[in-house]
Amino acid sequence: MITLYTLCGADASRPFSPHAWKAVMALAHKGLAFDEIPTPFTAIPAIAPDVAKTVPILRDGSRIVADSFVIAAYLEETYPDRPTLFGGPGGEAMARFVEGWANAVVHPALSAIIVKDIHDGLAPADQAYFRETREKRFGKPLEAVVANRDADISAFAAKLQPLRLMLARQPFIGGATPLFADYIVFGALQWARITSSAELLAAGGAGGDPVTDWFERCLDLHGGIARTVPAAA
Amino acid sequence: MITLYTLCGADASRPFSPHAWKAVMALAHKGLAFDEIPTPFTAIPAIAPDVAKTVPILRDGSRIVADSFVIAAYLEETYPDRPTLFGGPGGEAMARFVEGWANAVVHPALSAIIVKDIHDGLAPADQAYFRETREKRFGKPLEAVVANRDADISAFAAKLQPLRLMLARQPFIGGATPLFADYIVFGALQWARITSSAELLAAGGAGGDPVTDWFERCLDLHGGIARTVPAAA
Repeated sequence: MITLYTLCGADASRPFSPHAWKAVMALAHKGLAFDEIPTPFTAIPAIAPDVAKTVPILRDGSRIVADSFVIAAYLEETYPDRPTLFGGPGGEAMARFVEGWANAVVHPALSAIIVKDIHDGLAPADQAYFRETREKRFGKPLEAVVANRDADISAFAAKLQPLRLMLARQPFIGGATPLFADYIVFGALQWARITSSAELLAAGGAGGDPVTDWFERCLDLHGGIARTVPAAA
Repeated sequence: MITLYTLCGADASRPFSPHAWKAVMALAHKGLAFDEIPTPFTAIPAIAPDVAKTVPILRDGSRIVADSFVIAAYLEETYPDRPTLFGGPGGEAMARFVEGWANAVVHPALSAIIVKDIHDGLAPADQAYFRETREKRFGKPLEAVVANRDADISAFAAKLQPLRLMLARQPFIGGATPLFADYIVFGALQWARITSSAELLAAGGAGGDPVTDWFERCLDLHGGIARTVPAAA
């Protein structure tokens, strides 16, 4: 039996970690059943103290695996007869480039927009932890981080232009069908969708933003597992 | 016998097209012998008028193939027993994402820095063609495009942060060894190296920029084929 520890705020039915969503999508992609245990920030260190300080953490029988990419590689190696997450060794290597882009460009841009929304959705003990660690990381109060929020929202969509150019050629980063690299980028946008009501993407469809259409396609995958958590109101 | 048409300015010994360099590296990667025919801008339309208006153009026996990515896919399909350019279907799909990033981020940034240097290295007839088409594309005189050149050079290295994060994990975009995705990004930096003396990257080595080390590794590949053209003085 597989257990996946993810991250939640005050409402345990709304797990929101971008990295945990990558692991959820990877498990669903492999068609593996799992129990998800949404965990507040301050309870995470007790899950597997010797192994990891952050989620996702996967428990598969006696094996404990942490880090979303390591989890994907573990699933690929352990369940090779299930649908591939990488499409071969080149795809596994290049997923690290997609991860580099997501971490260098997409996560910082989203974080500056949604960090206060994330804070506001946490339980009080987690709010104190989150404010302290994030204000240290940003070097300023959360309220100052989001001071230019409207301008940051306006500037966001342009940062996804590499994805947009690619989508003119194929429906997924994985090609005709999705691979783990799609979930790497999807996880970031799902994080924002669940924690914040900020409107980050224009409408899709004819003449619209192909990134929006791709994101909707990802939400539809694997029985719509990513839609089980509604968008923030 | 394979012939590759590439792009040159007044000096035919200094072919500089980023896309043609991708094809040169792909041929060398496959270990295929080829004749390179560096061609000035205004002579390109006559190479294969019904097929392509831009280089690279590959002639392999009776087959003519244009577009660097299509050439790589053609070589992968036609010479499957040679070293792979994609590392499987996932790698081929994700190379399109790397191409999207290169075209959306790296090429525009470099172009704004080196466009006048490129112009200055062309023969007179090509200078007239180049100035007209590029000024139309930029919407201003070439001299105005490079007016903020020093600031653009200073800002350039930060745009490569996705590559830098990835290089903390593996030596090439292709993983332990290079794939076509490496040549996609390499081609852009080689374009700048050959046409411009602008110093775009800091030193590599311990404490230096890992992107510089990766670029040097690419210059060393396949017998140092990319070093046969010295850097612009």
